[in-house]
Amino acid sequence: MVEMKATNITWHPSKVTAEDRAAVTHNRRCIVWLTGLSGCGKSTIAVALEHALISLGHPAYVLDGDNLRHGLNSDLGFSPADRVENIRRAGELARLLADAGLIVIASFISPYAADRQRVRQLMGPDEFIEVFVDAPVEVCERRDPKGLYKKARAAVAAGQPLGFTGVDAPYEVPGHPEIHLRTHEQSAPQSVEKIFNYLRQHGRLLDQE
Amino acid sequence: MVEMKATNITWHPSKVTAEDRAAVTHNRRCIVWLTGLSGCGKSTIAVALEHALISLGHPAYVLDGDNLRHGLNSDLGFSPADRVENIRRAGELARLLADAGLIVIASFISPYAADRQRVRQLMGPDEFIEVFVDAPVEVCERRDPKGLYKKARAAVAAGQPLGFTGVDAPYEVPGHPEIHLRTHEQSAPQSVEKIFNYLRQHGRLLDQE
Repeated sequence: MVEMKATNITWHPSKVTAEDRAAVTHNRRCIVWLTGLSGCGKSTIAVALEHALISLGHPAYVLDGDNLRHGLNSDLGFSPADRVENIRRAGELARLLADAGLIVIASFISPYAADRQRVRQLMGPDEFIEVFVDAPVEVCERRDPKGLYKKARAAVAAGQPLGFTGVDAPYEVPGHPEIHLRTHEQSAPQSVEKIFNYLRQHGRLLDQE
Repeated sequence: MVEMKATNITWHPSKVTAEDRAAVTHNRRCIVWLTGLSGCGKSTIAVALEHALISLGHPAYVLDGDNLRHGLNSDLGFSPADRVENIRRAGELARLLADAGLIVIASFISPYAADRQRVRQLMGPDEFIEVFVDAPVEVCERRDPKGLYKKARAAVAAGQPLGFTGVDAPYEVPGHPEIHLRTHEQSAPQSVEKIFNYLRQHGRLLDQE
């Protein structure tokens, strides 16, 4: 290593290790993958979890349809093939963000078990935390925060089905999620706390001096 | 805000601001975009800059062909259209990583000014730092760390040109880069120091208490 005079930065022409990063970000890299129907509460939980982590000094980042569909995935539509590609890219992106030392909070309906499994396989054994954000479809449809169920029902009635998950497309329930939330029985703060405690208990958050 | 008993995390259902993130990452978000011919020294500088930043407590991340071509962009080849898409996605990805609070060090030949300009426009006025990593093509070809020039010359001789930048494809020199490095006249540590000082002087690095 060569000490540089003016700045006291050092010359180190080798790759940064995961441990080097962890010392700066106080995280061990992981993806918290929130899956569930539209209206199940994913976004609310994602945003509040991000806020909680950051306020305690742990860099975190929410990845969702909003920041993907407008940018990286702006070339994709809603055909079955494009949906698979949407989740493939979301997974690769989540992996990169996690590799950079962030706790990634990925919030996607991601209805197919195979797609979620593919993302899991990109990561190490404890680095993919699947969170099933569960609520009965009737509850989600009653909430319908974006009016999407209404639109999907109208499309079905008009003979032009949209392939909307929970209405005319399937949702494959996670078989062994690391965390199972029931948002019709517990409050959003309780859900966030449950995930936070899981991260702490499983060594994903490092203490800061 | 609701104080949660067991963990003292707080309930905050709103988006995290850039200032919230900066307080945790000690950075103001930006992309350091290294552009130049194969063999000009981009990778060496990128890796050493990342190391220097992280060792001083600033989360940073290198984005380059190696970690993109194998993952996110594994569906892309080397046709002109795929090259444009490669840089489009690299730019969108860099923007997301920067948005998450990292100093992004993007290392791509990125020979076309229009492609680089498109990435610049994704960012705020001081958030895109174009670094022209300059060395005469003869010098780069003499270094040829990956044997790519040799391969490209052989392909041209065999009548099957690869469209390799600097051999049989153009490189559009940056008109007004924020930083101009001449790697045949200055050492790699000097180049890294120059970028580091720029970041410090332009307020991209925040002091830590």
